[in-house]
Amino acid sequence: MSNITITQTGANKTFGGWTKMFSHPSAICGGEMNFSVFLPPQAESGDVPVLYWLSGLTCNHENFITKSGAQQYASEHGIMLVAPDTSPRGAGVKGEDDTYDLGTGAGFYINATEKKWATNYRMEDYIMQELPEIIRASFPVMEEQESVFGHSMGGHGALTLALKYPGRYRSVSAFSPICAPSRCPWGEKVFLEYLGDDKGKWKLHDANELIKSTTLEIPVLIDQGGDDPFLEKELNYELFLKTCTDNNQTLTARLQTGYDHSYYFIATFMADHIRHHAKALQV
Amino acid sequence: MSNITITQTGANKTFGGWTKMFSHPSAICGGEMNFSVFLPPQAESGDVPVLYWLSGLTCNHENFITKSGAQQYASEHGIMLVAPDTSPRGAGVKGEDDTYDLGTGAGFYINATEKKWATNYRMEDYIMQELPEIIRASFPVMEEQESVFGHSMGGHGALTLALKYPGRYRSVSAFSPICAPSRCPWGEKVFLEYLGDDKGKWKLHDANELIKSTTLEIPVLIDQGGDDPFLEKELNYELFLKTCTDNNQTLTARLQTGYDHSYYFIATFMADHIRHHAKALQV
Repeated sequence: MSNITITQTGANKTFGGWTKMFSHPSAICGGEMNFSVFLPPQAESGDVPVLYWLSGLTCNHENFITKSGAQQYASEHGIMLVAPDTSPRGAGVKGEDDTYDLGTGAGFYINATEKKWATNYRMEDYIMQELPEIIRASFPVMEEQESVFGHSMGGHGALTLALKYPGRYRSVSAFSPICAPSRCPWGEKVFLEYLGDDKGKWKLHDANELIKSTTLEIPVLIDQGGDDPFLEKELNYELFLKTCTDNNQTLTARLQTGYDHSYYFIATFMADHIRHHAKALQV
Repeated sequence: MSNITITQTGANKTFGGWTKMFSHPSAICGGEMNFSVFLPPQAESGDVPVLYWLSGLTCNHENFITKSGAQQYASEHGIMLVAPDTSPRGAGVKGEDDTYDLGTGAGFYINATEKKWATNYRMEDYIMQELPEIIRASFPVMEEQESVFGHSMGGHGALTLALKYPGRYRSVSAFSPICAPSRCPWGEKVFLEYLGDDKGKWKLHDANELIKSTTLEIPVLIDQGGDDPFLEKELNYELFLKTCTDNNQTLTARLQTGYDHSYYFIATFMADHIRHHAKALQV
């Protein structure tokens, strides 16, 4: 990429490093996109690994960086955090702002193929190509030292992208991921809109399906709240564990009693997740 | 208080304890008031001390509990956190919603005496009387084991309330407090409105004035960001340190290079503040 223009829209010193916000024109999404980062103090004297966070439905690039408390642990371990937005904003697609779980705030980390959405809703390419190019060109990061984690829709994103791009990430983790979007209301709604009615295509973006033919050769950690109101209907945690067992996929999965779907849950176990990635990223 | 009715409006398990939100009719402020709490896991098996947080301008009862990361440390030390709102809401006083630094979100932790505001804007009595009565009646808290801290307007609140009510708190701390509201634009604006034009009355609610005749016999900690955009014009940090020195007030005051006025700054030094209070509260 020859021309990269990013605009810094915020900078706050945090745990010895810097929380920063940026916007940039996106060739892939066809409009302005936002992301936040945390640069640990170690980035002032050398290259650091990068850990991408993928947020859940309705979130933008700010929720994680203001609420998760991740900077404390990223500062300790010397890891850069990158938190992109969850969709294009203001793309102008009819209906994109009508419901919280389709369109704006609900990009699902896939490339839409249905004509209506296909021009702008290309979050998979954005996360896998354009954003990493920007990060590598703009910040002191190590080559090929990248990991990914996320929450809910972003947990689905982290798991499926790690499955679809073997070798790309050193580790993956998820909080309350949507494990089987092909068979839950959130996933069925957006996959029909973004991908059309061929359910064979849906399986290419479904961790519970992908894990049947692909093995994640990197460390995998999943935390799931036991009192998550979406556990039964949307997340398919038990089904995914069974599919992993049936297909010899090793992972660490923890059902956390009493916790729900909120950032309070995420903050509680953030230290463990950053440690999980730090170990794989060898920092 | 014979009739206390509080309504729980939220509950999220957090670091082994519970973040909860409440609303209640306030006799003192003449309307519904909101507060948030964190109950540490230790509160399930015994009484715990209470640490009150007073927020800054524009905040409500949620900012601290969602952004500060304080639950992690309160859980470690076994301290209950209580974060009230910063003013009445919807009191109906003319002009209360016109600017961010007067009226709604800007109660300044004093009792207004000017007629227009005096019925509702009584945050000093609310914080010192009504709210603690509710807390003691509703939660497993230790008698006389209370401390206070806050940010900006709330740092002013913490310091002045500790000065005005000797013996009430075991410790006090502040992030970027408004140290001398009698002589800064924020303070001059609200004191004129809430207290009238007799500047002798203003001095009764000004830490930099109160410290001349009262000594805080409890541990005092202040953190101030070196790149705080309000440092010069609004906060009077250097003046307050000089007044403390001139009047033999001991305190720990730290100018933190590069930090600003935000919750990123607060989160960075939250562990130190909770530790400061835990020591005084003997937990």
